[in-house]
Amino acid sequence: MMTRVFINFLTERNGVNFSEKLDNIIQKKKSLLCVGLDTVLERIPHEIRRQDNPLFAFNKAIIDATADFTAAYKVNTAFYEAYGLQGWQALKQTFDYLPQNTINIADAKRGDIGNTAKMYARALFDDLRADAITVNPLMGKDSVSPFLENPEKGVFFLCLTSNPGSADLQHFSDGKQELYERIVELVKSWNTKGNCGLVVGATHADELEHIRRAAPDLPFLIPGIGAQGGDLVNSVMNGTNANSRGALFNSSRAVIYASSDADFADAARRQAEATRNKLNEARTKKK
Amino acid sequence: MMTRVFINFLTERNGVNFSEKLDNIIQKKKSLLCVGLDTVLERIPHEIRRQDNPLFAFNKAIIDATADFTAAYKVNTAFYEAYGLQGWQALKQTFDYLPQNTINIADAKRGDIGNTAKMYARALFDDLRADAITVNPLMGKDSVSPFLENPEKGVFFLCLTSNPGSADLQHFSDGKQELYERIVELVKSWNTKGNCGLVVGATHADELEHIRRAAPDLPFLIPGIGAQGGDLVNSVMNGTNANSRGALFNSSRAVIYASSDADFADAARRQAEATRNKLNEARTKKK
Repeated sequence: MMTRVFINFLTERNGVNFSEKLDNIIQKKKSLLCVGLDTVLERIPHEIRRQDNPLFAFNKAIIDATADFTAAYKVNTAFYEAYGLQGWQALKQTFDYLPQNTINIADAKRGDIGNTAKMYARALFDDLRADAITVNPLMGKDSVSPFLENPEKGVFFLCLTSNPGSADLQHFSDGKQELYERIVELVKSWNTKGNCGLVVGATHADELEHIRRAAPDLPFLIPGIGAQGGDLVNSVMNGTNANSRGALFNSSRAVIYASSDADFADAARRQAEATRNKLNEARTKKK
Repeated sequence: MMTRVFINFLTERNGVNFSEKLDNIIQKKKSLLCVGLDTVLERIPHEIRRQDNPLFAFNKAIIDATADFTAAYKVNTAFYEAYGLQGWQALKQTFDYLPQNTINIADAKRGDIGNTAKMYARALFDDLRADAITVNPLMGKDSVSPFLENPEKGVFFLCLTSNPGSADLQHFSDGKQELYERIVELVKSWNTKGNCGLVVGATHADELEHIRRAAPDLPFLIPGIGAQGGDLVNSVMNGTNANSRGALFNSSRAVIYASSDADFADAARRQAEATRNKLNEARTKKK
């Protein structure tokens, strides 16, 4: 309790909320790249797969290889939960190993009533020590409040996702606005501590521009530039803020499975560097 | 793989999909009660809390005490994830211990793109061996399909939840229908294998009647009759199907924390029996 009060005091004094922390890291690392650690056993190279703890061994090698070029890592909890207790252990080890100078995101897409959301916040922010998480806003304000208490911890809310099924509910319209636009409006109203952001798929380049105009200051987490085939250049031009920052572009499979052979780490490093450079080039086209 | 093929073959031959399995259990157990195992360390009686594995020790005692009166157990994954690796272990042990003749629900409210949803399905259906799960439908059809492959495994989709924030998005309206009504329509279209259901909070007795009329055959999971203060009698009259079945009514805190002393298991048993009886009495009022 005292620690939390003290942290709040420091945060208020220094004014370092999540949004500013993200901006500092993007500037220091000169990168908008987020690498997604969606690790599946079947795609880990043979010599690593034979080890005792292959999920973590693979992640460690990928983190070491790519850290120079990344502003963030996004760890999708599903890929670890699928392996039961061992998977959960690898998830924890991965978070413990992630660098201090990146934004480390638990992509868990949680959302539940208040007393339950509190438990998820504890799991993701306190136990895993994630810097940011993804949250599903369908259950509304009291379901998201427990995630927003600490201004240093970020929450990216699902807004318009990268998959085909996003059309089923996210485009549901009242004639004046669609559901995803209502989500933008709500998230802006929840952002009293500077720690809210939005998840907007790179597969929707036009809507990305529209959402950026509606929320000029919110950080965006933009998945879909890799294996999902979203348009990288347009996503950067439309998704970044007025300073050509304020957005993280996630690539998972295209980076971590760049090679399935013994050279997988080198290949991931080259792919991360190339993607970081492509993102930076696209930024320069903005003006 | 062979096992899965064989199970599918048996299922098709016997026609036992999730909806029928649930109906059989409700009839055999003469109960609509679902007990929610939302176990927090701070509320476990002292003598259990001192044990090595208090979460599971508490759950075991509660399950033993209440199994005679319950049709289902709902285990909210958040409450276990909050305790990290130890919590995940207790979650697994709890599922391993749950009776065969109840519907055992992993209340995880997951939802993500297809390849990720597949991993969540593996975690919840294969690793935990849950009979049913809760899923958030915001990301649409391709995000829910991996959960619907096995007709024996049930999926309760969030439709209208019991919390105040449900108004923020679930009542968003296109003038003809609200978002939760659109969800009902979608879930009906996804129910080709008889394994879909809806989560509808008992705190919305009027809408419950309306949703039951729109979806006469879908199983409902109805939280909120205990600590959240929903109206039990109206919820049963409005939420059950034409046979006064087809719905599970969840009580978590009111049952499992009926007493905080050494008599906690007896108190939980009495509370479960009383709630089972109240639910059955309400059924008789229906006609």
